[in-house]
Amino acid sequence: MQNQNNSLTFPDDIRAVEWIGSAADGYLKVMDQRDLPDHEHYIEVRSVDEVIMSIRDMLVRGAPAIGCTAAYGMVIAVRQSRPDQQDWQSRLQDFADALKLARPTAVNLRWAVDRIIAALDGAAASQALTLALDVALRIHADDISANLRMGELGAQCLGQSIGVLTHCNAGSLATGGHGTALGVIRAGWLNQSIDRVFANETRPWLQGARLTAWELGKSQIPVKLIVDSAAAALMQAGHVGCVIVGADRVAANGDVANKIGTYSLAVLARNHGLKFMVVAPTSTIDYEAPGGADIPIENRASDEVLNMGHKRVAAATAGAWNPVFDVTPAHLVDWLVTERGVISKPDTEALDGLRSGA
Amino acid sequence: MQNQNNSLTFPDDIRAVEWIGSAADGYLKVMDQRDLPDHEHYIEVRSVDEVIMSIRDMLVRGAPAIGCTAAYGMVIAVRQSRPDQQDWQSRLQDFADALKLARPTAVNLRWAVDRIIAALDGAAASQALTLALDVALRIHADDISANLRMGELGAQCLGQSIGVLTHCNAGSLATGGHGTALGVIRAGWLNQSIDRVFANETRPWLQGARLTAWELGKSQIPVKLIVDSAAAALMQAGHVGCVIVGADRVAANGDVANKIGTYSLAVLARNHGLKFMVVAPTSTIDYEAPGGADIPIENRASDEVLNMGHKRVAAATAGAWNPVFDVTPAHLVDWLVTERGVISKPDTEALDGLRSGA
Repeated sequence: MQNQNNSLTFPDDIRAVEWIGSAADGYLKVMDQRDLPDHEHYIEVRSVDEVIMSIRDMLVRGAPAIGCTAAYGMVIAVRQSRPDQQDWQSRLQDFADALKLARPTAVNLRWAVDRIIAALDGAAASQALTLALDVALRIHADDISANLRMGELGAQCLGQSIGVLTHCNAGSLATGGHGTALGVIRAGWLNQSIDRVFANETRPWLQGARLTAWELGKSQIPVKLIVDSAAAALMQAGHVGCVIVGADRVAANGDVANKIGTYSLAVLARNHGLKFMVVAPTSTIDYEAPGGADIPIENRASDEVLNMGHKRVAAATAGAWNPVFDVTPAHLVDWLVTERGVISKPDTEALDGLRSGA
Repeated sequence: MQNQNNSLTFPDDIRAVEWIGSAADGYLKVMDQRDLPDHEHYIEVRSVDEVIMSIRDMLVRGAPAIGCTAAYGMVIAVRQSRPDQQDWQSRLQDFADALKLARPTAVNLRWAVDRIIAALDGAAASQALTLALDVALRIHADDISANLRMGELGAQCLGQSIGVLTHCNAGSLATGGHGTALGVIRAGWLNQSIDRVFANETRPWLQGARLTAWELGKSQIPVKLIVDSAAAALMQAGHVGCVIVGADRVAANGDVANKIGTYSLAVLARNHGLKFMVVAPTSTIDYEAPGGADIPIENRASDEVLNMGHKRVAAATAGAWNPVFDVTPAHLVDWLVTERGVISKPDTEALDGLRSGA
């Protein structure tokens, strides 16, 4: 897979979501990630309800991918709002509000919806649909560009020939394409700063075992899975030099909400003298949340823990505690890699600087 | 379930292994824990090969339960050695050597086998079989007594009304009965030092979800399961004051080998200012292993991580790293609870004192 001209790009044709056809009668093609790695199949999404279902039921997941899905969802929302009829903006706003509620933690959802709304502000009704699609396609393309850039920047932070550990899936499947954490791993693998990749299987949804391993396999990057609780022993054994993860939302002070288990890895990495890298586009930063405590953390059904697939595995009397994200305080983050640059030791000031482009 | 006389005993009729019948034609009844919690069924074990299979294939697991199984296995070994014929001791030693190899990490396996061999030293051939069963029954009864005692001692260490987190299964199913970590939790629940119990589901075998939750359910102690990687978030949220685990082997300096993920919990507990308690009978201490580095750590097949049940869930190209135990350094252990007393801050000197009864 080594690129002839040594540039840090990487073949990647995996797309979690894609718009097919025109604004007027096109549709959103969504990979149903729940069936990976056994089946790679797609559904055609043509209504806002279906967009919401796709996000809520986790056919598509990962903050940037949810953002792209919501952007395309707004194209469908404009269409369903019938801009040729009166009060279409009011109907559009209702759709926008409903979309934002699909899942609570990934801030890219709100960000993408608001960006389309802002773009349509003052637009002629006759132009609204094509304009919405233009902006959605731009959001998607920008996300891929951001990931390619973050991949390069992140890989430059690493030393020579280190092992890395990632959690959940922050790859093409979780983004517009290429991935955040996996973007850095792809780039690091190419420039040989990374020579071993480990992935947490990531209970309860097994995104590591099902999605990250599948993606890396497609890119011919060998990966070893571990049960999530083995991360400390892996670090103790000296197999990894850096933990690389994505983010669902970054607070204004640099606190990071990401898949449950991320905070554990951050504590363990610091305890073992290893680096902890968060890779997230600026669209994932929520400047309205001063700190991690202001980020809503989604609790999902106990069955996700008590069952495997659709079969109950836990004893009948057991309950479960199932928050699906946790918050890593900024002081445990060594590098926050964004498309606008890498912040070492993120804090409110540094993130403010990123916003103003300082 | 509150006991009328307030003594810290607890109804518990769960037995992982039990000898049925006489030494001459009895058998070992082994619960097949792989089928819990769906089916509580038992197999009749009548040959050394079957004993080895029961341990190796994890029908029975947990260091003290493996010790009891091996002790009864030695009764069967004496029978198969035909003490009425010449050179039976040599055949017995071969069986003993084979038994010790069934699994590498739990030191109680070696300890129990050697204890029977020592008891038979110089015994008349005609008495060997009944003597072996007497010693095996004593090992089993002593283990239950030790667990009851450790339960009381451990519960006395805890404050009032705290939440606790346990890992894997260190209950009746992992011991002769009553349990080590779960013995403390039973006692602490009765004396109200514990008011909330959380259990890691414990991948890859899910001993927490399948076994610990089942046992606690039988004792009417409510338990909430978490995915293993959520332990840090649980601690961060202030839900637990102490982590309580068992041990598969304790080195002479107090380093603790236990189910993979234990070391992670110890680091996280220390980081959050919480207590970390290891509950293990002195039969689990290996004075021949100066430190944790001298404890052999079993690696099991990748399939245990890559599959769920018998179905592959991980992407086809993925490998796995699957050590099934890890080593927690003694300095992270706040209390080592044994039947001979509680050691705070275990080290070589303190463990030596335990041996000499000082």
